[in-house]
This record gives sequence, structure tokens and C-alpha cells, in this order.
Amino acid sequence: MRTTATREDIHEVILDAADRLLARYGYKKMTMEDLAHEVGIGKGTIYLHFRSKEELVLSHIDRLIARLKGQLLAIARGDGGPAERLKQMLLTRVLFRLDGVQHYTESLSDLLAAIRPALLVRRERHFEAEAQIFAEVLREGQREGTFAPAVNTAAAARSLLLATNALLPYSLSPVELGKRRDVERAVSQLADLMLHGLLSRQ
Amino acid sequence: MRTTATREDIHEVILDAADRLLARYGYKKMTMEDLAHEVGIGKGTIYLHFRSKEELVLSHIDRLIARLKGQLLAIARGDGGPAERLKQMLLTRVLFRLDGVQHYTESLSDLLAAIRPALLVRRERHFEAEAQIFAEVLREGQREGTFAPAVNTAAAARSLLLATNALLPYSLSPVELGKRRDVERAVSQLADLMLHGLLSRQ
Repeated sequence: MRTTATREDIHEVILDAADRLLARYGYKKMTMEDLAHEVGIGKGTIYLHFRSKEELVLSHIDRLIARLKGQLLAIARGDGGPAERLKQMLLTRVLFRLDGVQHYTESLSDLLAAIRPALLVRRERHFEAEAQIFAEVLREGQREGTFAPAVNTAAAARSLLLATNALLPYSLSPVELGKRRDVERAVSQLADLMLHGLLSRQ
Repeated sequence: MRTTATREDIHEVILDAADRLLARYGYKKMTMEDLAHEVGIGKGTIYLHFRSKEELVLSHIDRLIARLKGQLLAIARGDGGPAERLKQMLLTRVLFRLDGVQHYTESLSDLLAAIRPALLVRRERHFEAEAQIFAEVLREGQREGTFAPAVNTAAAARSLLLATNALLPYSLSPVELGKRRDVERAVSQLADLMLHGLLSRQ
């Protein structure tokens, strides 16, 4: 039985506390002192884990995306036809992020504005990791004849992500963030459009 | 021959000057005094046209979108098959906005952060106006058999816009804003994907 917390445990506990404080105070008003108090450790200890408030929030987002990747991989390697799996993966990549910020939709704008430049850079890496999982399913579907042979799977993976990026919390207003069912329907329609295309098949 | 400027002329001249100053100073540093000086009128006169700096910038964006609508309508009602016109319209809606901010990519982040909430509301109206033009072409293409009869044209129009929204300046980093050719290729691939779909046609 483990009786002492490891460095990783503390890291996780700090991020959990940051999530609660971001919901309570918003990004601007949350201080490292508040956070140390919430966790019950000294402020210096927080800085041993995170150099700044911005880095803390970026780590929080990284953790969210790592969990999302786990879910995407589970769907990608799970049951169902490749087209159905792609659609579920698109729904998951949008709704997982939406649910992750659902408890602080009000203060999200100020957080996103504050870390915008760093976040835009980070997103590139997140999207690339997601694209590899989507490309895997596209290649499998192409081998078995579900997807057209002419499809460039790497480019198509990026297009699928790009098409749903406008539905991520970053691009939504507080009102839209609250409309989960609308977001879900929009992703579903987009997925169907990209699977079937507009052109008549006659 | 007209010898005096009308109210509309002054309105346009102020917006032109605002565009230059946004490029030169950025949103935060630009003052209404700077603007009055640039135009060569009193600050009070600026306020007769625009209640605030935010309203001024939103009007600037509205003007850009009005011009874009003109271009989209010209393509929608121009030559070429409906599929080709849709693709051109998608390229235009993205590249027109990109070109409109090309001279101040550096200061764009601070502008977008500052007016984010108001802009997100405004965008709904802009997207709705664009969607109507896209739906017109979709209906025409459906009547003549180019597009599948099962396509819901109103929903498809919204999906086409949504899919390309992540490529609008609002969602791009300063580095991405500079890569016009990359953005153009991304829109082109997305358009092809949405026209043809991923599924094999065998």
C-alpha cells in the first residue's frame, strides 16, 4: 500500500484544483495563492510543478486532450464499420471538449483571450495527434473498400478535423457552449456530408 | 457636381482611416484622438458616427462582410456548374477575409481578444447571410440533378460554412495568417471532400 503522494499525484491534484478555481473565479482572478490554498500546499510547491499560471492552464488542456486521445483510440480500434467509427470519433472530439468546459462557460472567454497565442500553437500539436488516429481508420476503410480509393487519407484526416474545429469551445460563444444538442446535431450533419458528399450518385 | 461630403462619405472615410490605424498601432493603442487626427476632423464628429471604438471596429467588419456578400452573389449567379461555383464561393469567403486583415496580422490577436464577445454575436448574422447565398446554389444544383435529391439544402449550406469557419482569421495564429497558399489548399481539399464524400461510389 502506497502511503506517500508521488510527484505525479501532486501534479494531478494541482490540475484538479485549478479546474475548480477556473470555474469559480475565472482565469484573470485566479491567483497561484488561491490555488496553493485550495490544494493545501505552499505556493513555492506549485511553482515547482508549473512555471506560470499560463503554463498551468496549458497543462490542464494537455491533460484533457490526452484523455480525449484515449477515447478516440478506443473508438478507432473498436467495433462498427469504419464510416460509423469516424462519425463517432468526430462527435467525441467535439463533445468531449465541450463537456470539459461545461462548468465554466461564463469565464471561458477571458481564459481563451488571455492565453490565445500560446493556445493556438499548442492546438497544432493536438490536432496532429488526433489526425493520426483518424488516418488509421481511413486507411483501414480504404483497404476494405468502404472509402473511395482516390481519397488521400492523410489529407482527409486533416480535413475532417478542420471541418469540426469551428465547433470546439475556442470558437463558440457562451450561449452556443450551452447548446450541447445543437452542437451535436451540427457535427452529425457535417459528418454525414463528408461521408456521402453533395454530388448525386446517379 | 457634388462639392460637399455626405454623411455616408464621412462614415466611409473614418472606416478607411481606422483600417490604416489598426494596422499601424493595433486595437488597444489606437485612440479616437488618433483617428480624428488621421481623418482631419474633430473627435466629436467621430462620436457622431460611432459610439465607441468597439462599435467602430464592428462596423469596419460589417463593411468587409457586405463587400464579401457582393462577391459571393456574383459567383453564385455567374457561369460554371453549381459544384464549381460552390467551391469558388468557399474559397472566396475564406480568402477575402484573409486578404482583408493581411496588412495587420501582428496586431489582429489583440483586436480579436478585445472584441471577442461582441464579434461572436455578430458572426451569427454574417454566417446566416452567407448561408442564404450558398443555399440558392445548392437548390439550383439539386433541381438540375448535380446534387443528390436527399440533400437538405439549408442544412448543407450551414455545414459548408461551418466546415470552413475554422480557416477564418478569427481562428488562425499570426503564422497561419501569413500562409495564404496553405489556407487556400486546405479550403480546396475541404470543398472536394464535401462535394464527393469519402464513401466509395461502387
